[in-house]
Order: sequence, then structure tokens, then C-alpha cells
Amino acid sequence: MDSIAELRARLRAFAREREWGRFHTPKNLAMALGGETGELLAELQWLDGEAVAEGLAHGPLRDRVADEAADVLLYLVQFAEAAGIDLVAAAHAKIDRNESRYPADLARGSAAKHTELG
Amino acid sequence: MDSIAELRARLRAFAREREWGRFHTPKNLAMALGGETGELLAELQWLDGEAVAEGLAHGPLRDRVADEAADVLLYLVQFAEAAGIDLVAAAHAKIDRNESRYPADLARGSAAKHTELG
Amino acid sequence: MDSIAELRARLRAFAREREWGRFHTPKNLAMALGGETGELLAELQWLDGEAVAEGLAHGPLRDRVADEAADVLLYLVQFAEAAGIDLVAAAHAKIDRNESRYPADLARGSAAKHTELG
Amino acid sequence: MDSIAELRARLRAFAREREWGRFHTPKNLAMALGGETGELLAELQWLDGEAVAEGLAHGPLRDRVADEAADVLLYLVQFAEAAGIDLVAAAHAKIDRNESRYPADLARGSAAKHTELG
Repeated sequence: MDSIAELRARLRAFAREREWGRFHTPKNLAMALGGETGELLAELQWLDGEAVAEGLAHGPLRDRVADEAADVLLYLVQFAEAAGIDLVAAAHAKIDRNESRYPADLARGSAAKHTELG
Repeated sequence: MDSIAELRARLRAFAREREWGRFHTPKNLAMALGGETGELLAELQWLDGEAVAEGLAHGPLRDRVADEAADVLLYLVQFAEAAGIDLVAAAHAKIDRNESRYPADLARGSAAKHTELG
Repeated sequence: MDSIAELRARLRAFAREREWGRFHTPKNLAMALGGETGELLAELQWLDGEAVAEGLAHGPLRDRVADEAADVLLYLVQFAEAAGIDLVAAAHAKIDRNESRYPADLARGSAAKHTELG
Repeated sequence: MDSIAELRARLRAFAREREWGRFHTPKNLAMALGGETGELLAELQWLDGEAVAEGLAHGPLRDRVADEAADVLLYLVQFAEAAGIDLVAAAHAKIDRNESRYPADLARGSAAKHTELG
């Protein structure tokens, strides 16, 4: 079954059973997304590349990072639903556009091009 | 086909063809995720609830918000891949935990409980 | 005494005494700034305008929000120092530019203009 | 003159002349802060430590980063005003607390301690 559709169905039931729908406006969910992204950043902020790699290979960092990344996805799915947006279609449309904007033969290995991708 | 697996495959090919893999460390991708979340917040920051609803129903706001939400998803999928995390499994595990932490009959309609969900 | 200069001096001594300087790269401090901004967003995310106003007038919300706003300032001051940027001069230069970009008689009361301010 | 008080006075006049006060609720300003922090992260996201140092020493990166850091400060000052918070007092109180929580002789050079500082 499609993974995002399945998460959306579970989240919808979860919020309905708790009558939390009225909190789930697009603005509030965008703020929640910002909060969770901040928690993910905080997990990695003081570690250098080597320490991140080691921590993600095993140990508690891996679990905390997985947990924060999951929270980002859960709020993003709920944001898209509240905003009436088809997240998966929008994501494919964005990759299509990026393929036109950054032709592989021109963009290859270029940090400058990549930076513009923003 | 599973939506996240399909996006991951497209993004992997996209980065490989442009030799952008070396930019895609967990820290860099977490920062990119923060940047895109910020762009989503910026789209909604000055609008009240009514203006958001109207703008999302039609018009350019809807397209811009869909585009930013897509960017968040694309970087989240790439972050999870770089971090070696199964995003969908982590998301289901998180919903499981939230179902235990917030029993429907206790949490119903409570902003206080919901706030703690953070 | 100038408030930002005084905070900078205290933070510099704090980090030096703990030998934390090597963690304080511009990238790491930008991530920490993102983390603290996320905590501030999380404090307000489920509250409507009225509940925010009430919570800020008294009670624990006020203290938590003051604490998170302080963290944002502390990391911003440290980021500017690590990046070699004169934060106050940059802020005045930005207000100067905004005064040219948004002439008061044209921008008055306009959400559209304001939105572009981004 | 105190730097934050002076910025606050300029920003207050700027918003009053444009009648933008009604947009400046605590929630909206927190979102704007999230947006600007995201722009700062985006400037540094693909660069490694060496490229950041080189870019900040001269050239356009330095100007863009100064501009984004200034935006963060400007929205933070406006957020604190809208929230009725004394930003400078809160920042000193936070440093006081951190001095108790992280005694210099115990926290010295420790990434673990520092990580907890969050």
C-alpha cells in the first residue's frame, strides 16, 4: 500500500478520535513542522561529520534522529491534508522542474549550481 | 507503487547524475530541510486563518505552498537516506507510541494534552 | 553599556572557560539557531491569538517564551561573532534598505507589500 | 546608546508609519523568525567548513549572511516587543542559569555536556 496514503489515514483517525482537528490549521501545522525540524537540527548541531556517521551507525543518536525525522514527516503529511495539497504529486512535479533547471551535463559536481537549487 | 520509495529512487538518480552525492551529508541535508521549512513558514506568516484558507482554495498561494511542502518532503527523504533511516517505519513507530501516550478518552479536545505532544 | 556588546563579552568568556570554542563554527551555530527558533515556534503552535495573549500576560507560557527568545538571541550573537559579522551595523543597514524599498505612503496597511518584505 | 533599544525604536516607527502593526502578532512574528532562520541555514547548507570560512572572509557570501543574520535580529526584536518580553534581561538570566548548569570545571571540552545544553 502507498506509504503516505497509509500514514495520512492513521493520522486522520488519530486526530479525529482525540478531537484535535480544530488545532490543525495550516498555520499551526506549519509551525509544528518548524518545531520538529528544529529538534532534528538540534540533534546534529554540535557533532562533526565523523561523529554524526558514528552516532547514526548505532546507538541512541540513531533512534533520536529517526524519531525526529518521523515527526517531521507526520506533521508534513498533516499540513498537506489541512492545506488540501497532494504532497506526492507536488513532489514529482518539483523533481520534473529540477530536471529541466539543472541539466545533468551542466550541473555535474558543481557546488555553485547546487547552491542555486536552494 | 509506494510513494516514498518511488521518490527516493528518483532523487537518488537525480543526485547521482549530477554528482551531488558529496554535498548530501546528514548535517547539510538537515540544514536544507530547515531552509525549506522556513520558506513554507514565510508563505503563511502574515496571513490570518481566513486569508490562508482563501489563498489555498485557489490562486498562486496554493501553488507556492505546494511547491514548498514538496521541497520539505524531497529533502526529508534524502536526509533519511543519508542517515540510513527507514522513514516510514519510524513514522509508524511514532504513531504507535503516540497512541499509548495520548489515550483517546483522556486527550479528547484538550489543548493542554496536545501541547505536550510537541 | 551596549546590550549586544555586553552579551557577546559574557558568551565569549562562557565558551572560553568551557573550551567549547571548537564546537562554535558558523554552520553549527546556524543549526543551533534553527533549533532554538523551532523551540519558540513549538511554544505557540497550538494556541490561537487569544490564548497566546492570555498566556503571555501571565503564567508559565511567558517564562518559557522569554527563555526561548533569549536562546535565539544568544546563539545569534555567537553566530555573528563566529562569522565575523557586525550584527548591529547589519541590522541598521537592513532597516535603511527597507525604508527605501517600502516607502511609507505606498506600503501603508498593505498585506501584499508586507508579504514581499519576507 | 543601547543597541537593542535603538533597533526597537526604529522598527516601531517603521511599522507604525506603514500601519503594519496588525500583522505583527506573536505567532506571525515567530513564523517570520523561522523563515529568516531558514534563509540563513540555506546560505550555508552546501558548503563545508573551509568554504564557509573562505566565503565569510570576503565576497558575496559575507554580505548575504550578514543580511540574513540582521533579519533574524530584526524579527526577534519585534517578536519580543509584541510578546511583552524584555529580551536583554531574559538573555542575561539565561546565561546566569547556564553558568550554574554547566560548571566550567566539569563541562570543559565536553561535547556530551555541550549537547545537553541544546
